[in-house]
Parts: sequence; C-alpha cells; structure tokens
Amino acid sequence: MGLLLLGPPERAAVWSEICSEVGEVFYHEVAPVEEVTYLACWQPPADLSVYPNLRVVICVGAGVDQMPVMPEGIALVRTYAASVDEMVRDWVVMATLMLHRDMPSYLEQAREGLWQGGAISLSRGAKVGIMGMGRIGSLAAETLGGMGFDVLGWSRSGRGPQDVRMFDASGIDAFLAEAETLICLLPLTSQTRGLMDDAFLAKLPEGARLVQAGRGAQLPLDALRRALESGKVASAMLDVTDPEPLSANHWAWSDPRVIVTPHVAGQTDAREGVEHALAVIRADRSREKLPGLVDQTLGY
Amino acid sequence: MGLLLLGPPERAAVWSEICSEVGEVFYHEVAPVEEVTYLACWQPPADLSVYPNLRVVICVGAGVDQMPVMPEGIALVRTYAASVDEMVRDWVVMATLMLHRDMPSYLEQAREGLWQGGAISLSRGAKVGIMGMGRIGSLAAETLGGMGFDVLGWSRSGRGPQDVRMFDASGIDAFLAEAETLICLLPLTSQTRGLMDDAFLAKLPEGARLVQAGRGAQLPLDALRRALESGKVASAMLDVTDPEPLSANHWAWSDPRVIVTPHVAGQTDAREGVEHALAVIRADRSREKLPGLVDQTLGY
Repeated sequence: MGLLLLGPPERAAVWSEICSEVGEVFYHEVAPVEEVTYLACWQPPADLSVYPNLRVVICVGAGVDQMPVMPEGIALVRTYAASVDEMVRDWVVMATLMLHRDMPSYLEQAREGLWQGGAISLSRGAKVGIMGMGRIGSLAAETLGGMGFDVLGWSRSGRGPQDVRMFDASGIDAFLAEAETLICLLPLTSQTRGLMDDAFLAKLPEGARLVQAGRGAQLPLDALRRALESGKVASAMLDVTDPEPLSANHWAWSDPRVIVTPHVAGQTDAREGVEHALAVIRADRSREKLPGLVDQTLGY
Repeated sequence: MGLLLLGPPERAAVWSEICSEVGEVFYHEVAPVEEVTYLACWQPPADLSVYPNLRVVICVGAGVDQMPVMPEGIALVRTYAASVDEMVRDWVVMATLMLHRDMPSYLEQAREGLWQGGAISLSRGAKVGIMGMGRIGSLAAETLGGMGFDVLGWSRSGRGPQDVRMFDASGIDAFLAEAETLICLLPLTSQTRGLMDDAFLAKLPEGARLVQAGRGAQLPLDALRRALESGKVASAMLDVTDPEPLSANHWAWSDPRVIVTPHVAGQTDAREGVEHALAVIRADRSREKLPGLVDQTLGY
C-alpha cells in the first residue's frame, strides 16, 4: 500500500521527505505494481490495469482535461492547492488591470520611445465578467470587487458568491453583452472546447477585453484575430493558447493588442501538493469524501 | 467674488455647468482681477498679487511640488478626489503584480516569440514596502494585503493603517532592508528630491523591485541604471521620471528590466475636481477647515 508519484525529481524530494515524516510509503517513478494504491501524476500511463490495487489517481494540477476516463472503481481527484488558486487570482487581477489601463498601448508606445498619455479609466463601475465561479473565480471577484469593479459571474448552475451578480447557463447572452472585460477560468470539457468562437465573441460589447486563464482549446486563435480586426475585441491577455507552446513566428506574439504569457498563471507548490495527496489518502482510508474528487461525467 | 479656473476647455465646460447649477460665479482663463477670490490651477501665474481679493489657491491635482509658497493670507489646498486615489491605487497594484510576476521578462520573451515558463512567486508572504502612507498608500496596502502580500509602510511620523507594520523617519534603513518590492508614493518636497540615490538604493534587498508613482525628481535615473547593472534592483516600473517627458532615445524605454508609462497613474476627474473646489469655497465661507489644506512648511 503506497503512493507513487510520476513527476520531476525536485518535486519528488519534497514529497519523499514529507511522506517519511508521516510514515507513508512513497515511490518515485517506479514501484512494485501491487503496492501502488495511490498514483499522483499529471498524465497516467495508458494502461492503469497494471496496478491491481489502485484506488485513486491524484492529478497534481487543477485541470483534468488531459486525464482519461478512469476504469470502474478508481477515483480521480484534482489537487486542491490554495497557493495555485492565489497564483492564478494574482495573474488574473494583473491581466485585468493591464487591459483596463491600456498597457498594450503603453507598451507599444514605449517600444517607440513615445510619451503620450491618454484618458484614464476608473475601475469603479467598470464591468468585469468572470466565467467559471469556482475557488479562483471567487477569489478574483473578491479582489476586483474590492477595487470597485462591477463583477458579474457566469457558471452553469448560476451559483456564485453572494455579492456577485450571477448568470446561469441560459443567461450566457445577457452575461456576455455586459462583459466589458471577460475573464475565462473555465475547465476544458466537451462543452467548453472551442467555446469562444466567432459567434461567441460577437456577443461581447464593442471593444471588449479578453483575459484567458482557462485552457487554450477553448479559444480558437483565428476567431480572436478576426475579433481584433473588427474591433469587437480591443485587447487580450492569454496565459493559455492552442497550441502550446506557440511557435516563435505566431501572430499573437507580435500583435500589439495581445499579450501572451507561457502558461505561468499558476503551478502547484510541491509541499501543498503532497499535503493534498496525504489528505486524499486519509479520507479514502476513513471512507470520507475525497478532497478534490472529480465528477467524471461533468469533467471537473 | 468668484472662482477662476486655469485649465483645458473640456474641464472648464464641466466646471461651468456645475457652478451655474449651484449659483457660484465661475470664470475660465480670464476674470476681472478683483472678482477672483478662489483660483483653481495646476500652476498659478507668477504674481498672485494681481488678485487683491484672492483667498485660496486650489491645486487641481494631488501633488503641489510645482506650486510656489503662497503670499501671507492665501491658503493652498490640493484636490481631494477619491477617483484619483483609486486610479493610482489601481496602477500601483498592477505595477506591483507585473514586477512580482516577472512581466518584464515575459514581455521580453514575447518579443522573441519564446515560450518558456519560470518559477512562480506566491504573493502570500512576499514583502512590499510602501513609502508614503496617505490615502493612496492606505488603499494600496488594503488591496495588496488582501491578496496576501506582507505590507510594510513608511511615513515620517510612522503613522499608518493598523494592520500595516509601520516604520518612521528613524526606521528608514530597517524598512528598506525588507522592501523586496518598494513602492514610492511620496510627495516631492525638499526632503524627497533626489531621495532614491545610490546610497538609498544600496539599502534594498538584492534583486529588489521598484514601483515609482511619486514624482520623477525623487529618483535619479542614473542611480537606477547603476542599481540595475549591479543586480541590486531587478526591475522597475515608472510612471514618473526626471525629466518628463523622456526623450525618445532614453535608455529607460529600451531596457527590458524597466517599464515606463507616461504619467498616467491618475488624473482628477473634472466633476470631482469642481465638487472639491465648491467644498473648499463653502468651508472658507463658514470658516471651517479647508478640505485638502496644504501645510506649506511640510510641502504637502
């Protein structure tokens, strides 16, 4: 009965130390197959049936779109690391402010050595629409709302923090029509793949800004380019793209209206990752609900 | 008895409308000199004695370093516009996050079409030192502290918000030694002119980040350049510079470690400006303390 981690050695060093402190059997990369009851990884081996006693696959990140459907009897959990939530919240707040305060234009001017101020937008009352109202969306709403932004939220169920005006699945058009800045924090599922296509972007207000911290495959970059050309979208900040990495000559790198960061909004801290894994193991042994349990029908 | 505004026509149009609503005599650019009891401007005419009945000079911005010492009997106030405070707070939060999350490096990589992620810094526990703990400093401390940053504050008196660890004039070295990111929001006075020289920057932690939203003359750019070359300062974001504007071929535009915006952190909203001016007039007539009264010995 033990925990097998597939991952880089620096991460394994932290996991190994903390597992030994609490007396949990830990393996890195290889283990006797019948010993593996818990498997922590980003992507599992193609055939999980080699581990006859496997009970739980622990995704070391928050997104599980890269995970196959689990065989009967094997649970899938995603890592519940508060630090990742805060990292992504920080990136989203930064990106929202950068677009709201016209940093794409000022960065372009700086490249030309041009000192030219423009009108300044107040955050108070400016509308920001957050798609995906889980932990990260709620944190972002709290910070942006605290700064005076008028935060709207969208989730399938319409559930969200009390002080956020929420829209549900049927309210998507009304939500998009108000989203002067649209923040995407959705997981990648069969329903969100290719979501932000031409028809979707056309529902935004003219000159909208787009902050993409969901998954690359949700936003066809050709559709974004057409929306930029038409003026429908004024600027965009992308931490995820399709494909990843972007090729060196991709248009998005050189378009002054677009700022790309290389999927660095968040990453799981090694210590928090192993603490989550140990919490999953404890919960499983005491037959409690696993923290971060993924509903495989919904895909998150 | 009337209010004279020296300023652009778009601003004057708003002031004129609101003054007429409340029955206040308003002049733009020219007025019979004996009528001018209140003068609103960014910089006054050289000889204020031409206005024999002048009582108050109302600076339309928050900084009064460009103002001469007033003649006996004439008060100086600076504009108390909550919107400017929020605008500058937004810029400061944005700049702090951009430096904390290595945007200068990612922007440089983007120019080369290079997709290469690095380690991600948590905001939780990262130390941010704010110099200048007035309204804007307190707002910035609230937002950054709410995101988990460990906020330190410095002011001459050592006074500041309760939940900020404050340092006073004598504690400057201890404050700087902890300021992993240093935010300057100080007014320009005889004591802060040239403040951030080589000796000052040498007191920062190695690889510190610098957010400058005070006044350009506080930071000799040659000293900043030397601190960047030595590695003492890792990156900087400047909204104010000396001189302003920067010439098109200034090194700061092209140094990838420095991001310059053209003095656009904040500007007084025309409506809020005139409402402040009217509040000053009401207070003066009823012999109450003028809102935004400047202590001309201190210079702010």
